[in-house]
Amino acid sequence: MREIFEAELQQVGDDLIEMSRLVEAAITKAGTALLESDHQLAQTVIEADHAIDRLESELDERCVHLLAQQAPVATDLRVVISALRISATLERMGDLARHVAQVARGRYPNQAVPGPARETFVKMNDAAVHVAQQVTALLATRDVALAAEVEQDDDLLDALHQDTFAAMLTPGWPGTPQQTIDVTLLGRYYERFGDHGVSVARRITFLVTGDFEPEHVRSGA
Amino acid sequence: MREIFEAELQQVGDDLIEMSRLVEAAITKAGTALLESDHQLAQTVIEADHAIDRLESELDERCVHLLAQQAPVATDLRVVISALRISATLERMGDLARHVAQVARGRYPNQAVPGPARETFVKMNDAAVHVAQQVTALLATRDVALAAEVEQDDDLLDALHQDTFAAMLTPGWPGTPQQTIDVTLLGRYYERFGDHGVSVARRITFLVTGDFEPEHVRSGA
Repeated sequence: MREIFEAELQQVGDDLIEMSRLVEAAITKAGTALLESDHQLAQTVIEADHAIDRLESELDERCVHLLAQQAPVATDLRVVISALRISATLERMGDLARHVAQVARGRYPNQAVPGPARETFVKMNDAAVHVAQQVTALLATRDVALAAEVEQDDDLLDALHQDTFAAMLTPGWPGTPQQTIDVTLLGRYYERFGDHGVSVARRITFLVTGDFEPEHVRSGA
Repeated sequence: MREIFEAELQQVGDDLIEMSRLVEAAITKAGTALLESDHQLAQTVIEADHAIDRLESELDERCVHLLAQQAPVATDLRVVISALRISATLERMGDLARHVAQVARGRYPNQAVPGPARETFVKMNDAAVHVAQQVTALLATRDVALAAEVEQDDDLLDALHQDTFAAMLTPGWPGTPQQTIDVTLLGRYYERFGDHGVSVARRITFLVTGDFEPEHVRSGA
């Protein structure tokens, strides 16, 4: 029984890494599509989101099966429950990347992001891509030092998010109402992406170290 | 063992109903605070969100304990896993009510929502309150006919969300950039609130009827 459990748990871990890689690809491409007004690239992100959703469904079924067949307790049980939660969070990160791509596609051939906010979104996308990369590495290596980097990138995303508001509220902001709407939504998508990355990083840290405060795990900003 | 399981499961169900009641109170008050610029009422919503978070933590611990002690299978297992997911969703609905209250408080004594969008937000709040009420009733009664009402309210919220964009993109929209930002974020919060309500309604329907398509359960709009 133990060997079967270990093998199934390994598969769950591999699926999470695969999901995280897909999220990484999605946010990378979505940012490029947004900043370079590439509607074909945006379309590939939108279409590829189904693969993340499917992986989540499969992973969830595997976890429920594991719980039913193996009735894990203690740490093993926490690992399976955490996997369920991490898969839901990764699925949501994929949705947010898709939302960025949908804005890029919807405004084509225009730029969604006007000049004064462009540099901020270049930085936001870099930070979001880095969050996704560190989450993948954290899932693969369990090196909890990486979690601190995710937290730093999330702090950066929060600061950049505030910068977008400052830009829009500066007299002379040249954005059309559509651009103000888009910058507001895009800023929110990136900020949430960072929150979810932190949520995953904290859950993994908890599993590795046992050091856990429930109210810090939520991505509730 | 079976009796203990039934009693614990009953407690999980009661906690979910209690969470849903708190969410119902939160969105009701948040809407009033927003539309009447009542910053004290907004403050009570913001402070009360901790109680929802605490209930979620307790409920999650109870579910993990149940899984560890009772090792449920089949339908019992699905009920416990669903409870974990529903509690996370209700917690998120509480966050969204808090976000609405935070906008109301942040703009006081000004109105966050300018004239042409006010009527839309009156309707959005009514629909969101109705979503929360139906979710509470659905949790309490398992009357799956109520799920259809939640879906209808969510459709209405989506349509009203589109109305907010139409208003902001109409030439002559009198909103300041701050108001355009706020209307964009508020619209998103209400729209997500509806999505989450649908997610809970579908999970309960699945538990009652067994009729389930995973891709329809997610709140991924």
